[in-house]
Order: sequence, then C-alpha cells, then structure tokens
Amino acid sequence: MNGKRATAFVPGHVTAFFSAHPAADPAAAGSRGAGLTLSDGVDVTVEPIGDASDPTDDADDWSAADDDAAAAITLDGSPAAIGAVADVLAALGVRARVELETDLPLGAGFGVSGAAALGTALAANAAADRGRTENELVRIAHEAEVERGTGLGDVVAQARGGLPIRLEPGAPGHGELDGIPANARVEYVTFGELSTEEVLAGDTAALTAAGERALSRLRADPRLPTLMDASREFAERADLLVPEVAKAIEAVDRSGDRDPESDRSGGSAAMAMLGRTVFALGTDLSDAGYDPAVCHTHPAGAQLTGCD
Amino acid sequence: MNGKRATAFVPGHVTAFFSAHPAADPAAAGSRGAGLTLSDGVDVTVEPIGDASDPTDDADDWSAADDDAAAAITLDGSPAAIGAVADVLAALGVRARVELETDLPLGAGFGVSGAAALGTALAANAAADRGRTENELVRIAHEAEVERGTGLGDVVAQARGGLPIRLEPGAPGHGELDGIPANARVEYVTFGELSTEEVLAGDTAALTAAGERALSRLRADPRLPTLMDASREFAERADLLVPEVAKAIEAVDRSGDRDPESDRSGGSAAMAMLGRTVFALGTDLSDAGYDPAVCHTHPAGAQLTGCD
Repeated sequence: MNGKRATAFVPGHVTAFFSAHPAADPAAAGSRGAGLTLSDGVDVTVEPIGDASDPTDDADDWSAADDDAAAAITLDGSPAAIGAVADVLAALGVRARVELETDLPLGAGFGVSGAAALGTALAANAAADRGRTENELVRIAHEAEVERGTGLGDVVAQARGGLPIRLEPGAPGHGELDGIPANARVEYVTFGELSTEEVLAGDTAALTAAGERALSRLRADPRLPTLMDASREFAERADLLVPEVAKAIEAVDRSGDRDPESDRSGGSAAMAMLGRTVFALGTDLSDAGYDPAVCHTHPAGAQLTGCD
Repeated sequence: MNGKRATAFVPGHVTAFFSAHPAADPAAAGSRGAGLTLSDGVDVTVEPIGDASDPTDDADDWSAADDDAAAAITLDGSPAAIGAVADVLAALGVRARVELETDLPLGAGFGVSGAAALGTALAANAAADRGRTENELVRIAHEAEVERGTGLGDVVAQARGGLPIRLEPGAPGHGELDGIPANARVEYVTFGELSTEEVLAGDTAALTAAGERALSRLRADPRLPTLMDASREFAERADLLVPEVAKAIEAVDRSGDRDPESDRSGGSAAMAMLGRTVFALGTDLSDAGYDPAVCHTHPAGAQLTGCD
C-alpha cells in the first residue's frame, strides 16, 4: 500500500465549435476549436490499492475491480466503467480506487470523461509519486481519451483553463493553444445525452469544414460575442443542432429582442459540443424563462488540490 | 474617454534558476529555467484617459503624465516610472492611468516588473476593447520586459501559473513551457534589492552553464525537492549567492538537521533570482527563527479580475 490519497479538480469544458483531426499517433490526434472552461467540474480522488509494478503486492481488493476498467472507479458514489480512467492508471502503473464527484451532467457536452482522465492522471501521479511533469500527464490523459473515442480536445483545454482556443490539435508537444482574455457568468440547460463516439465515428468532413470556418472567424475577432456567434453558425452548418437546443436558442433570441436595455442583436445562447445542451452568457437563459444551472468561466486549468 | 476600468491579477514569480538566451527579436529572447508562481502578486487597474490613436481626443490629463513612462503610473499609491508598463500601453495604443498594488517587495526577485507589464496588457486590452488574444498580450508584455532589460522569463511564467519550467525561451510561438504538478506553502525574507539589469548586462556565460545544468537535473527528476536543490546548486555555481541569503540557507539547514521529525537532509531554502531574497517551503524559515512573509504557490496564471 502506498498509503497516500491525492485529489485533483478539473474544470468542465463546453466546446463551442471544433474540427476533427485524426492521426495514427494519439498524441498528435485531436481537434481545433474553441470553448469555455467552467467552474463546475470534476473532483477526482485517487487512492492506490497496490503497486501494479510489483506482482507480489497485495492486490486482493484489486481482483474485485471491474476487469475492463482495470480499477475500482466510482462516479458520484456508484460504480462506473470509464475506459480512459483505467487507461491512465495503466499508463502510470498505478492500481487505485478512483472516486469521481461532479455536478455536471454526463454525455451532455461538458467534457466529464476528459476531466476524469486528466484528474486521474494528476492525482495518481501525486498519490503514487510517479514524478511526471504536467505536460506528460496531460499527454497521457489526452491519449487515453482519443483512443477511447470519447473526446479530442477537452483534455488540453481543461489543462489550460480560461476560454481556450485550440489552434493546433494534439497533446503538449503537438498542439498549440491560445485563449480569449475574458470571463463570464454561464448558464446551461441539458436535455439529454448525445454520443460523442457516434458523431466522431461518422463522416466528419462537413463538421470539420464548418469548424475551420468558425475558427477563422474567431481568430479574426477573438472576442466572447464572436465565439458565441461562431458556435451557433457551426451547429447549423455542421447539422448538429438538436430540436430542444434550437428551440432554446430561439427563445433566448426572442427574449433578447424584447429587452430594450439589451445591446445584443438576438441572444448569446449556443449548443455545447457534443451534447443536447444549450449554454448562454449572463442571465440569458433565465431571462428566456428557463431554470438553468449557473456557473462561471474558470480562470485556471486542472490542478492538484490535495495530497495526504 | 472610454469610461471603462479593468483590473487584472498577476501572481508573483520567484525564479529558482535560469539561463539567459538573448536574441535580436525580443519575442524570441528569453530564458530557460524554473520557478514558483506565488499567491502574493500584483493587482493592476487600468483606466483609459483618452484614445492614443485619436489626436483630437481630449488628453488634458495625459499631459500631466510622466513623459518617459508615457502614462500616469502609480505603485501602491505613489508615482512610479515603470518603462515596461508604458511600452505595453504604447504597443496597444492605449493612454491610461495604471494603478499597481502589491504586497511584494520590489527589485527582490519576485517578478514585480513582469507582473506589472502583463497585468497592464490584460487590463488595457479589456478596458479599451483591443480584441487581442492571451498569447498576443503575453508577447507584448514579454517584449516590453526584455527590451527594458528587467527580466527574461517572468512574464511567460506568470501567464502560466503553477510551478513553471521554461523549456525553451521566448514568448508564445517561440518558447515552450511545462510544469511541476505540485503546490506548497512558501515563506520568504527579503534583505534588499539586486539589479536584474546589472546581472543580465554582465557576463552571463557561467550563469547560463549553471542554469542549463540545473534544468537538466530538474528534467531528470521533475519534483519540488529537486527544484529547490537545483536552485541552491545554481546560486553557488553562478556565483550569485549574497551573504545574507547564504546565512539564511545555512540556518534553515541547521534547523532541519536538528528536527528529528524531519525527513529532509538539510532544509528547503534557496535564493530567489534575482534578489537578495531567501525563500523556503512549508515552515522552514519560521522554524529557523526568521519572521518570513507567507504565501502559497499559485495554481493559475495571470487573469482579468474585473471590467466595468
């Protein structure tokens, strides 16, 4: 037993738009795009239950773990099989119990799988004293997420924090990031899940063309309102807009038009990629009559929060 | 008058060791090395007082400003001429009052000039709605700092936060960063100023050899205790250790040796580059009988904190 527990916090991440860039090397694969990291995120606690590199180590607890997950993983107290988390532990040679706690909805475009993978990497490295750098841990989590097909750009965005622009795809050493220097109150409503795996496994040509167009638009005017406009245009052009989200975006538009104090042409709502989720700035969803969850953009990237 | 005020917070940064890498292009110039960003930092408020791009603009207030500083800059309430701050404003075409507030000592190795330049860039961009990205603002602040000779690596480290390793020198697009995934309580005592300009203007060959050696050592074992050890070795090899700091480091060593509960071989104290400052982890300076200032490593990089 290592006898150490470590915790990490990873912000949620809504992707506003993206283009997919597959590659044989998972560290080089990824996405371009932009989004917002959120103060709502995932708390990850890792407690080693034996040393994977030592076959004589007591691993009684281990045998009870989910074989596929290769770890005893719980999400908000219930057993969960999250492949990327198991892969991260395997890459670091750590056998551990992993507790994930989050207020974010799953499969709804908040990067919970990426956050779980990245938080596990940070906390496992600390708990088992693996001596990896932050770039190495981000790469391990990014590779796990890419190989499981659950995401392409969340991990690098969540490692950075703020409002990340993914200029070039991939893990540190491959990718390139920038950011929009802004912060905002964020509201969101989720209507259900959307499979990232299915969308990414399908034909992504139209999606990628729309994503590249949105990125060009944002780079020409790297401001928050342009991020939201580019996101809306992307959802339409990539044909990803689902009816509930389209309806909410329209409701926010009408609400904004009615408000004589508003200087917005329409509203600030857009769809979180990839989820049946609408998100908006300020109080736009509340003003349109919805009962949203409320958080803020997060100024920092993923971080170790404790080790004892 | 723009009528907007914006504020930014930039963490302090103590450099543990570094090597100097001059270049004709100030964006490409910089340093390799490593250090700790601190929760003690600089709050920067920028209030535009006219539009530098509009010659008809009312600039009555402006004429009262320090000509050299090209801005009305105050530091903790007193007028201050900080060249890098004026240069950042000029690069963004913003005329403004700049208020800097900090608990950190000046000229003592905490990167206050870099923080002032970076905070001014972030706040001026927001206050005057200049629409620059974070990388662009970091580059502008880095160039100003390099051209004024007041620092080589603080700005990029302060933009990142955490415990930055500067793998390659220069602003975003040139430099490359990594980080040690750790956090710690930090104590420090300052005995006076040391001129960064003088050291950087002198023969930096021995310094750079010692810095490269320290970086190799840290990359082989990217852990916090190794950062502190490499810093101590660097200060000796680069012949930068000043007597007051050497005495404090020895006192911490003796104190650590006396403590039977300590698992340290010696203490964790080192010299902040470039200042007559000793810093240490945990309670090492207190335990050795000093009355240090206390802060923590800072998990986030520089950030906009308000705009109204």
